[in-house]
Amino acid sequence: MHAQNFNGTWLYFALQANTLPFYIPERILLFEKLKTSHYACLAERIQHSSLPIRIFMPDGKELKGESLITTPYEIASQISQELMTSAVVARVNGILWDLNRPLEEDSNLELLKFDSPGGKEVYWHSSSHVLGAAMEQLYGALLCRGPSTESGFYYDMFHQGSPVSNSDYPALEEICRRIIKEKHQFERIVVSRDDLFELFKYNKFKLRMINEKVTTPTASVYRCGSLIDLCRGPHIRHTGQIKAFKILKNSSAFWNGDPSQETLQRIYAISFPSSKQLKEWEQIQEEARNRDHRKIGREQELFFFHELSPGSCFFLPKGAHIYNTLVDFIKTEYWKRGYTEVVTPNIFNTKLWEKSGHWEHYRENMFSFRVENDTFALKPMNCPGHCLIYDHRPRSWRELPLRLADFGVLHRNEVSGALSGLTRVRRFQQDDAHIFCTMEQLEDEMNGCLEFLHAVYSVFGFTFRLHLSTRPEKFLGEIETWDEAEKLLERSLNSFGLPWELNAGDGAFYGPKIDIHIQDAIKRYHQCATIQLDFQMPAKFDLSYVRKDGSTTQRPVMIHRAILGSVERMIAILVENYAGKWPFWLSPFQVMVIPVAGNVEDYAQVVHQKFHDAGFIVDIDLDPGSTLNRKIRKAQLAQFNFILVVGEKEKLNGTVNVRTRDNKQHGERGLQETVARLKELKDSRVEKAEEQF
Amino acid sequence: MHAQNFNGTWLYFALQANTLPFYIPERILLFEKLKTSHYACLAERIQHSSLPIRIFMPDGKELKGESLITTPYEIASQISQELMTSAVVARVNGILWDLNRPLEEDSNLELLKFDSPGGKEVYWHSSSHVLGAAMEQLYGALLCRGPSTESGFYYDMFHQGSPVSNSDYPALEEICRRIIKEKHQFERIVVSRDDLFELFKYNKFKLRMINEKVTTPTASVYRCGSLIDLCRGPHIRHTGQIKAFKILKNSSAFWNGDPSQETLQRIYAISFPSSKQLKEWEQIQEEARNRDHRKIGREQELFFFHELSPGSCFFLPKGAHIYNTLVDFIKTEYWKRGYTEVVTPNIFNTKLWEKSGHWEHYRENMFSFRVENDTFALKPMNCPGHCLIYDHRPRSWRELPLRLADFGVLHRNEVSGALSGLTRVRRFQQDDAHIFCTMEQLEDEMNGCLEFLHAVYSVFGFTFRLHLSTRPEKFLGEIETWDEAEKLLERSLNSFGLPWELNAGDGAFYGPKIDIHIQDAIKRYHQCATIQLDFQMPAKFDLSYVRKDGSTTQRPVMIHRAILGSVERMIAILVENYAGKWPFWLSPFQVMVIPVAGNVEDYAQVVHQKFHDAGFIVDIDLDPGSTLNRKIRKAQLAQFNFILVVGEKEKLNGTVNVRTRDNKQHGERGLQETVARLKELKDSRVEKAEEQF
Repeated sequence: MHAQNFNGTWLYFALQANTLPFYIPERILLFEKLKTSHYACLAERIQHSSLPIRIFMPDGKELKGESLITTPYEIASQISQELMTSAVVARVNGILWDLNRPLEEDSNLELLKFDSPGGKEVYWHSSSHVLGAAMEQLYGALLCRGPSTESGFYYDMFHQGSPVSNSDYPALEEICRRIIKEKHQFERIVVSRDDLFELFKYNKFKLRMINEKVTTPTASVYRCGSLIDLCRGPHIRHTGQIKAFKILKNSSAFWNGDPSQETLQRIYAISFPSSKQLKEWEQIQEEARNRDHRKIGREQELFFFHELSPGSCFFLPKGAHIYNTLVDFIKTEYWKRGYTEVVTPNIFNTKLWEKSGHWEHYRENMFSFRVENDTFALKPMNCPGHCLIYDHRPRSWRELPLRLADFGVLHRNEVSGALSGLTRVRRFQQDDAHIFCTMEQLEDEMNGCLEFLHAVYSVFGFTFRLHLSTRPEKFLGEIETWDEAEKLLERSLNSFGLPWELNAGDGAFYGPKIDIHIQDAIKRYHQCATIQLDFQMPAKFDLSYVRKDGSTTQRPVMIHRAILGSVERMIAILVENYAGKWPFWLSPFQVMVIPVAGNVEDYAQVVHQKFHDAGFIVDIDLDPGSTLNRKIRKAQLAQFNFILVVGEKEKLNGTVNVRTRDNKQHGERGLQETVARLKELKDSRVEKAEEQF
Repeated sequence: MHAQNFNGTWLYFALQANTLPFYIPERILLFEKLKTSHYACLAERIQHSSLPIRIFMPDGKELKGESLITTPYEIASQISQELMTSAVVARVNGILWDLNRPLEEDSNLELLKFDSPGGKEVYWHSSSHVLGAAMEQLYGALLCRGPSTESGFYYDMFHQGSPVSNSDYPALEEICRRIIKEKHQFERIVVSRDDLFELFKYNKFKLRMINEKVTTPTASVYRCGSLIDLCRGPHIRHTGQIKAFKILKNSSAFWNGDPSQETLQRIYAISFPSSKQLKEWEQIQEEARNRDHRKIGREQELFFFHELSPGSCFFLPKGAHIYNTLVDFIKTEYWKRGYTEVVTPNIFNTKLWEKSGHWEHYRENMFSFRVENDTFALKPMNCPGHCLIYDHRPRSWRELPLRLADFGVLHRNEVSGALSGLTRVRRFQQDDAHIFCTMEQLEDEMNGCLEFLHAVYSVFGFTFRLHLSTRPEKFLGEIETWDEAEKLLERSLNSFGLPWELNAGDGAFYGPKIDIHIQDAIKRYHQCATIQLDFQMPAKFDLSYVRKDGSTTQRPVMIHRAILGSVERMIAILVENYAGKWPFWLSPFQVMVIPVAGNVEDYAQVVHQKFHDAGFIVDIDLDPGSTLNRKIRKAQLAQFNFILVVGEKEKLNGTVNVRTRDNKQHGERGLQETVARLKELKDSRVEKAEEQF
């Protein structure tokens, strides 16, 4: 055992705590022994089989190297100093690969930085090893799993002492900082299954993972400082690449997410290659917290949740106004575009779900119950019901395309622990529609769908990214049909004119699809809309239409499409996008009438009634204990788009004095004129009605 | 045994069939024996305790009689020859009473004819004895129950031979006709429980009824010809009062409606005091069949049902248009009347239903299922959810009245056998609203509710009957509150100005209510709207508001109200009321455009698009294989309200030639002018837009 193997952080731990997890030194000794034989073995392989290899870079450049010797890091250092320090991980022939791990054959090589999705994933995964090492040192606990997440990472531990408290964070962060400062290498070795059991014999959780997940004779193990972990990798080169590190929160969790298993302690953190990036991230978090739809939903009295129906939202009058206004907006667009609405059942015999395939693949997510001698389930989707409508009588080519829209209430059985505000619910409605058409009509229909979503998202001021997801490895149907459909989707996307990306192999098993991610005001992306081709469901329901020549029948194609997606989730996104400053047409706070004094209250009431009759959400402030300025300020803080002040002069002239929530003063205007202008602004759904008045 | 006891019908039976039910003669012999002692006993009572009594008629007249001797029939004969023959039954001190049964004390006496509800009930119940007698004679079966229904009567029998076929009807009707012709008296005697068992020992079903229903030491038994039946009565005097008799249909049924019990054969029939009335009834039935909403729903492609979701309707585009137009109509009215809409969950933990009392009283009608460690149920009503909304934060007197409207999807678990078109469904939506108000606001709110329903029903052209249902025997709460509320409802009804009736004691246990029955075009009544006061639910949910003085809190009153009732059921009523001839505003066939020839098709398309853009349901007939007259006829048969014919002249002038489905010809009109006028007619929801064009 070399003295260097027990370094500063280790000493820190030894000083801070009197408990010394017995397994740490034992584990290091065994690892070092195995490493020796790993490298001996590698040296022998090099001697016998190292060959010159060719390395192809994304820009087309070709480099030379030697198999089992040349590492991606060496290549990075040949290219530039900047890349040498900023590269986080490599991708070799499509597979993520440690920068320090020698190449094994001719390779396509990419060098990924933190700002790529793969780079972030590895960077945060490596950071979780730093966190795990610190958790072992501070708590002497048994580590479980430590993955990266969409935004940071966590590590779970089994710890029978007192639960984690946020007063532990400084000490934990201090250990992490030292580990980072000491630039520990991530060392990868490959060991046998037997050696894995020996290495992790102290930890029943890692043993379970070996039993369940390691199906090959050998597996990789990484050492980073005091931590030796069963891990597929890859990792960053050394902990010094982490420049900013922050513990975020902790919670309890269950082993495998199963409440009947052990309770674990989970600690969440995040890391960045610069403290500037951490600061920016913290600002966005702060902004997101201020915009949190649950917070604004409560403050503006839009909606609430109740323990007696978790995951099903109660929309209060103001929230229901937004809900209905969104649905009405889509209905108006449907009318323009030849969609017709249907109303369909909410419960169906499982025979339907067996036919559609939901019972086999989706049963766990459905609420089901016995009725007489059958089992019924609440619908999680509208499509099978629409197939019954299509099929309830013979169809002719004349009827196609048939565009059936449905705002039916859907239910999905999400685990109560996974429910979160309006973004993860059990009960929701979609602006769902299914288009049944011929193969010849498909291109026009796809163009129509793209144009439709563009029209809707423009009203919200959303920009969006388009992805074409094509035939996956496991697919149903004929390759020719897939090829034809994919070409057609490409043509539609190209003629649509916005840039799009290819997600090769990412389509649904039943057909290719276009995924749309909208970007909100604080640059976050959300997937709402989807346009999916489906060749399978029409076959499962044996749908057909009589062709023009009358002699034969043909199978229609089905398009699943939604633009808002779940109305519930879209409301969450809109609340956060607008931060509660609703555009006029959608606003539950459209007009506030304020009389200057008691003697014009009657006129204020007339104004109030006029706006109510014209269909506006209008309020009136008759509080005798407040001043004019305070009333105006209050209405502005409550985000009333327009504030109409009326005094003696306005009463005499039949006018109102118009100002906005941003305190833009439009001055005295005729009452009728103001009603008419606001109606115009509402009906045209302009984003900044306050400025365009 | 007197020979007269076996009369003509009996002989008819003996001639027609070779099976002679052994029990008929035995039963008659025993009955006659018991009758002798019944009359002996009566004679003795008369001797010892007959007294002069006073008989008060509804018109205030007072007559004299003797207890145990004077019968209502004698009184009728004193009043008029007409009444003597047309009276069906008496009501003595509020209780229905055989005309031949002697009065027992001072009595308020009413003489009911067939056209009163009580009269019809007795008339049809007596007719069911005639039917039962015939069924025994023809099938030799065991009779079960034979009640009157809303429209006629039926008798159930247990019959192990081949099932009833409609080829049996003539023979059955022939026996009934003979029984009627022979004017058999309905003879009532009272016998002991032991004698009942002896009388009905041949029939296990009657024995079960004695065991279950006869809780007194004696019970009444009626003889009518060959049939002796366990029966509470009362009955008409003799079978000769039945002048028209018709078997309608037969079906199978279960003993006690329970599929695990014996299968029975049920035969339905109807009877009237004149063949003219039967003929009229048959005409109405024929009319009702032609108007049957299931038939018209299919023909007009409004909706359909599917075996995979019994009781949940699929509304096709044209049906969904009617559905949405009705909902939008109510929403417009809500806006005018200060109601605000909410959107609430569809599933709730049973803890909610336990609190509301539904779990105790209504569980069988609810679909429930397990979710994690709890049981949830689909909501059958919105009220408990609205109580959660009321209660989600403290309320002030300033917020009352709070009128929460909800079109939420409701489910009730009706037995599949009871489901019937749109009138008896499992899934429906209501124009449901709950008003939370103070006791002081109650009268205004009730007036508002009455005015609201009057406004809505006037649009449909419905007249209606109002009933006030007051405190039942079993009630919750304080008598004083009930009295106050009932007085208040009376005041509202009186000031509303339409006649109303009192249903004393018919209120819900939680509060008095107003029931409203609308009358449709063929004079049938339907209950849709309801206005119910509820003192209990606010107590169960411990609802309160802070009073104006700020010092104390007070419990609000809750009003449950709906006007359409279930939208599904209202659509059934409207389909049948209009017989598919929809008023313009609600019509899914508003405008048909017909080009005179191929060379004006482009102009016809322009006209079509103009009307579509203006929001009308418009179609265009471009069938090249049809003539103009045939197209017009087809559009009229399809009930298009307006048919716009366009030719060269119209194209040149920018006009359309307007005619209606009733072939009223409005002639050439400007296109813009026509769009504008039809929009006016639609928006004002006039009933006869075709005439008012």
